[in-house]
Amino acid sequence: MDNMFTEPLPTRIRILRAARQCFAKNGFHSASMKTICGACGMSPGTLYHHFPSKDALIEAIILEDQERALTHFRDPLEGVGLVDYLVDSMIEVTQEDYAQRALVVEIMAEGMRNPLVAEMLKNKYQTITGSLVTRFTEAQKSGEIGADIDKGIAARMLLAITYGILSDSEAAENARHAAFADTFRNMVNGLLSVPKI
Amino acid sequence: MDNMFTEPLPTRIRILRAARQCFAKNGFHSASMKTICGACGMSPGTLYHHFPSKDALIEAIILEDQERALTHFRDPLEGVGLVDYLVDSMIEVTQEDYAQRALVVEIMAEGMRNPLVAEMLKNKYQTITGSLVTRFTEAQKSGEIGADIDKGIAARMLLAITYGILSDSEAAENARHAAFADTFRNMVNGLLSVPKI
Repeated sequence: MDNMFTEPLPTRIRILRAARQCFAKNGFHSASMKTICGACGMSPGTLYHHFPSKDALIEAIILEDQERALTHFRDPLEGVGLVDYLVDSMIEVTQEDYAQRALVVEIMAEGMRNPLVAEMLKNKYQTITGSLVTRFTEAQKSGEIGADIDKGIAARMLLAITYGILSDSEAAENARHAAFADTFRNMVNGLLSVPKI
Repeated sequence: MDNMFTEPLPTRIRILRAARQCFAKNGFHSASMKTICGACGMSPGTLYHHFPSKDALIEAIILEDQERALTHFRDPLEGVGLVDYLVDSMIEVTQEDYAQRALVVEIMAEGMRNPLVAEMLKNKYQTITGSLVTRFTEAQKSGEIGADIDKGIAARMLLAITYGILSDSEAAENARHAAFADTFRNMVNGLLSVPKI
């Protein structure tokens, strides 16, 4: 990752950046704490002081990803329709840094065999779907989406779609066609029972 | 995996079963050829005779998964609507063996950093979406789905949704609620521009 800062980054952030690079490149299991020390140029003592284990690193990365997802959905939308916003957000996801998308998939894979990571992801998904449900409730009030949808299931499905598209190695390319946005919009209209005009 | 056969399985199949278990349990990178030998009780010579590398094992597993997906979509549907069939297929996916779902996600993660695996997955996705597009064409002829959808993009998106839901560790539980099937159906109706009755 390029360094856009003239001031040195806080130690914690530098470690997390290095850990992301190592995990994305080699997978969670192949990247040792020693490799991460090498990548951020720190002693094991410093690394372990901030993150006592690889699980602690994963947790911090998951929380960063959660925070990034929440910036989209934490606050009420202003001056933009929910569906338009969801379409734009999805296109943005496909254009995110490839290595970081790879890391999200790596963590999903880890979450399917490591109960500790599964629990971290469960919390992340609950937090994000919670924000989505609040946005859905607002959109129902304004009549933008159907009144009788199951908001919890719809939010969870939207999340699954997002991760499915994010982990499609050809998504960035496909999303450059107008048909991608149109197709995604049709799908979201169906998912949220958007009334036809 | 339980052995339902009284006849011994062919060597190739036994190796693939053991490899699936090892990869699902420890991840692709942590499972060595030696571990796989141990798990299937074979000598390295026999293993390497059938599969010269871990990449060859992954390829065989990807082709098995592709074959399983194709059993759903290879032939024209008879006596069942496309959308009903897609809903049922999705529910089936959520009920598949958890370790095998975990392995699919593990391979997706590997595909994002290993160009050889990326190419294997690309072929798999093209083959499956090819069959889906043929089913879409039939459904368009019968007027079941919209005439103006982009079939290639819709098929690819359906695939992404499938992998997104498959990699949701809570999907099996969520899919037991009727709202899951209803929500998924609404979404597919939108995706395929199913005309409202």
